[in-house]
Amino acid sequence: MKFQLRCHLTYNMATDSTLIFNIAVCHHSAQRILQETLDISGARESEQYSLGELDNRYLRVNAPPGRLQLSYEATVELNPLEVEAENLPEVPPAQLPVEVLSYLYPSRYCESDRLMRFAQTEFGDLLPDYSRVTAICNWIYDNVAYLSGSTDAQTSAFNTATERAGVCRDFAHLGIAFCRALNIPARFVTGYAYGLKPPDFHAYFEAYVGSSWYLFDATRLVPPTGLIRIGTGRDAADVSFATMFGTVAMEDMVLAVDCLTPDEWPQFPENDAYTPAIKQ
Amino acid sequence: MKFQLRCHLTYNMATDSTLIFNIAVCHHSAQRILQETLDISGARESEQYSLGELDNRYLRVNAPPGRLQLSYEATVELNPLEVEAENLPEVPPAQLPVEVLSYLYPSRYCESDRLMRFAQTEFGDLLPDYSRVTAICNWIYDNVAYLSGSTDAQTSAFNTATERAGVCRDFAHLGIAFCRALNIPARFVTGYAYGLKPPDFHAYFEAYVGSSWYLFDATRLVPPTGLIRIGTGRDAADVSFATMFGTVAMEDMVLAVDCLTPDEWPQFPENDAYTPAIKQ
Amino acid sequence: MKFQLRCHLTYNMATDSTLIFNIAVCHHSAQRILQETLDISGARESEQYSLGELDNRYLRVNAPPGRLQLSYEATVELNPLEVEAENLPEVPPAQLPVEVLSYLYPSRYCESDRLMRFAQTEFGDLLPDYSRVTAICNWIYDNVAYLSGSTDAQTSAFNTATERAGVCRDFAHLGIAFCRALNIPARFVTGYAYGLKPPDFHAYFEAYVGSSWYLFDATRLVPPTGLIRIGTGRDAADVSFATMFGTVAMEDMVLAVDCLTPDEWPQFPENDAYTPAIKQ
Amino acid sequence: MKFQLRCHLTYNMATDSTLIFNIAVCHHSAQRILQETLDISGARESEQYSLGELDNRYLRVNAPPGRLQLSYEATVELNPLEVEAENLPEVPPAQLPVEVLSYLYPSRYCESDRLMRFAQTEFGDLLPDYSRVTAICNWIYDNVAYLSGSTDAQTSAFNTATERAGVCRDFAHLGIAFCRALNIPARFVTGYAYGLKPPDFHAYFEAYVGSSWYLFDATRLVPPTGLIRIGTGRDAADVSFATMFGTVAMEDMVLAVDCLTPDEWPQFPENDAYTPAIKQ
Repeated sequence: MKFQLRCHLTYNMATDSTLIFNIAVCHHSAQRILQETLDISGARESEQYSLGELDNRYLRVNAPPGRLQLSYEATVELNPLEVEAENLPEVPPAQLPVEVLSYLYPSRYCESDRLMRFAQTEFGDLLPDYSRVTAICNWIYDNVAYLSGSTDAQTSAFNTATERAGVCRDFAHLGIAFCRALNIPARFVTGYAYGLKPPDFHAYFEAYVGSSWYLFDATRLVPPTGLIRIGTGRDAADVSFATMFGTVAMEDMVLAVDCLTPDEWPQFPENDAYTPAIKQ
Repeated sequence: MKFQLRCHLTYNMATDSTLIFNIAVCHHSAQRILQETLDISGARESEQYSLGELDNRYLRVNAPPGRLQLSYEATVELNPLEVEAENLPEVPPAQLPVEVLSYLYPSRYCESDRLMRFAQTEFGDLLPDYSRVTAICNWIYDNVAYLSGSTDAQTSAFNTATERAGVCRDFAHLGIAFCRALNIPARFVTGYAYGLKPPDFHAYFEAYVGSSWYLFDATRLVPPTGLIRIGTGRDAADVSFATMFGTVAMEDMVLAVDCLTPDEWPQFPENDAYTPAIKQ
Repeated sequence: MKFQLRCHLTYNMATDSTLIFNIAVCHHSAQRILQETLDISGARESEQYSLGELDNRYLRVNAPPGRLQLSYEATVELNPLEVEAENLPEVPPAQLPVEVLSYLYPSRYCESDRLMRFAQTEFGDLLPDYSRVTAICNWIYDNVAYLSGSTDAQTSAFNTATERAGVCRDFAHLGIAFCRALNIPARFVTGYAYGLKPPDFHAYFEAYVGSSWYLFDATRLVPPTGLIRIGTGRDAADVSFATMFGTVAMEDMVLAVDCLTPDEWPQFPENDAYTPAIKQ
Repeated sequence: MKFQLRCHLTYNMATDSTLIFNIAVCHHSAQRILQETLDISGARESEQYSLGELDNRYLRVNAPPGRLQLSYEATVELNPLEVEAENLPEVPPAQLPVEVLSYLYPSRYCESDRLMRFAQTEFGDLLPDYSRVTAICNWIYDNVAYLSGSTDAQTSAFNTATERAGVCRDFAHLGIAFCRALNIPARFVTGYAYGLKPPDFHAYFEAYVGSSWYLFDATRLVPPTGLIRIGTGRDAADVSFATMFGTVAMEDMVLAVDCLTPDEWPQFPENDAYTPAIKQ
């Protein structure tokens, strides 16, 4: 399937400012960038670089007071690998690949250390396999209200576990925290999402089961087969789509994701707790 | 039923200190104080006073450096009023007696305002009557581990809701917070508890249903018919058994509650989610 | 000095709702209500009652779906008692009147128990008298930004101590928490404030020093001589101007406070850390 | 200077368990490992691996129920690079090396996003150079009590900023959080510390100023010239000396650090806010 995505961002700087963007589609086995353009106007200088295990692609922009405009467009071919995963076992810490271990540790927005008993109480008796992560997602879907504006950049999984409202980022953080509390490596993923209304950056997560990472999205807002990956990190602190230093106001954001091969697009029921699994 | 209780407390003051105790059995329709003694040694001065809606009986002691010893003994007749309450309806805020309304508001250890959605998700669909408070207690019993030393004087219901471990005080705070979040007035009660092992001050709570307060104890540690009330308040901030100003160390605490009428004492199964209800 | 105040509130109920208002000026030695009217339209029934140590005057309104309008007007004579208080000593817990003791305890929005060392570090070495509370207010004024919209109904003193932004209610909560952490009784006061721009309900606090309560307002937004007291409580949980049960949206709020004796009104410099003190 | 260090750890496993240790001295320009031994008894299998930007050296051990003993010994030559750094400027985000940027982001124990105004209020007006980080350390030393047992593995900088007590790990987390809140990259370092009484693992931090990392230790417990680096990470979540999966109890820990070249060891006054700086 091919998708065309556009991301136009407009900011207004009151002071000299630095912005770090993570909006470019990453290079990943499940997706291929066919074409890509980036236009920046209003910047003093800019620099692209890649960092992190999955080579997240960042853009650092220095801008003087005034208006900054960013226009990123890409054509991406998605090849999500759908597999039967229901019975894939969790991997005990003794056998986990060493590079995966750090995704067991608590992070800013995923305080798994404070949710150990919570996770154990709710999910401790379930079979230690892929289906347990599905159960975590179902629990989140059933118990947390998706409510725009209910949370902010400081909201963490610990908050969401009690306050029970949030947006995609909060759903992902809570899923990650529960997984880590059960010794399942989990990490945060951002992406463009085909079908998301209104269009916005999306967040979901991956858990390590069997011998791979698998995609999970507790929001059920969009079919996971239409997710185009941008960044991967421990949590939103690593892959915020825009990190700002200076006095900056966002003026406008226009996102659009179109499917260029609509005949290939499978329809899903709304609010679907998607199966089969997508191996990353 | 008659009970004999003893409470011996020993403190060591490094400086001139003031201690406020709430250890005397209160006057209440469900209990009668047959005999009572209080001995204090090592104090410079002391004063007894009553405060609060239920006339909690406080003792303020000023003590010089050195050892302070308190010995409180009482013989108490308990007449718990057991009733069939299962279908007693909750009272909507529009009809609640005005003096009960303040027990709807959040307090230091019962942040009901932060647990609104949590309570709504878990208990919102249940029948709005006495049985819903029972369901809250059952949930706490099932989901929170009773674990000595797992919490401290700063632990609140918001913490316990996620951290899922605590002692009697934490169980009571969480029960109260859930009730208030559902618009059920609830308050904190401390008492001596017959059968508690090891002997200690106990904490439980009351919820207002029908047209009265009813007793609830989510810990299931002791039969509620053996609870001898000391203090009643919004939460533990009001009725701590000892509030200290100065540099004070507790050296020893000996509590004992004996039943003087063992033939009248009904046996309960262990870990019993007690019925019938006890009207206060 | 005489003031004329008007408070017009409009709500829109989506469901049958109950609202508890605390908007009527209270009876207090420092102020006299010369005339007062209350009009309610759109209510099914309403009830006035007084509660609390200072007889806060509440209004409970039950309203059907639709619009509810409240109009409260009053003419009030203010006689603030200005005194020289700078050297009035704090009262140690051993000598405090018993009815004042509960204002030493932590409450929902004033977690003094969690700010003990903070208060000790910042204010522990200051003279234990009225001037220490002034120092607390100065610290708050200097270190916390007054920023509309920066906080919400869940923000507490513990948050404000670190996050360093808030509105009048947060300034008062932090002042109270610091006082209690230093064993100075302190309580929350709401009122109408002459000169406040834009007009709004105001919040400030009282501390118990010498043998009386004294008024403190760390916001420095208005001269304390123009404060007309509504409610007094442990914190905002007790004296919220409107507590709502049901699905209610505020549509409009119009407040106005006029001085009927402008010749008597003393001018103060802006942002004045007011002296002399006002005894309550 | 040469140091001999010994670390003997004894654990008791109730179940099959996995432990990840980060106790081996790392390879770093400021230190050279002259000799090193590691003995493990009671393990089923063990594996050494390096991870992270500075190649932290981890040891993963799988152990059956029973006793596990670890003995790590090393002889290390330390060559701390002492320089005059007082006026080295902070580097604005626009010019920071890209690999340093992630140390600007909040992490589990260093919630810099929640301390922005706090840091700005306390340190915002200071010169943006090395001396500002020194001022941060001085503030921590002056305002936070070093108190064993006052905190636990869940305590974060946000807590310490208000609760004002902690141990070396908390001091480091708070220093890091303040730095990041001011856009100064900062990271967590663990090490063996010559002269620490009682001997224990130590934690301190590095801030990026000028064009290098510099060492800071707000505890003033030991001369920074005697710190032997183990691990470097975003915070303690990355470089805990032991992360345990299973039911494990520590039975014994014996640490010792001896100076083999005592004549070269410079004496420092106690509680010294060390200068010159140590470049890492």
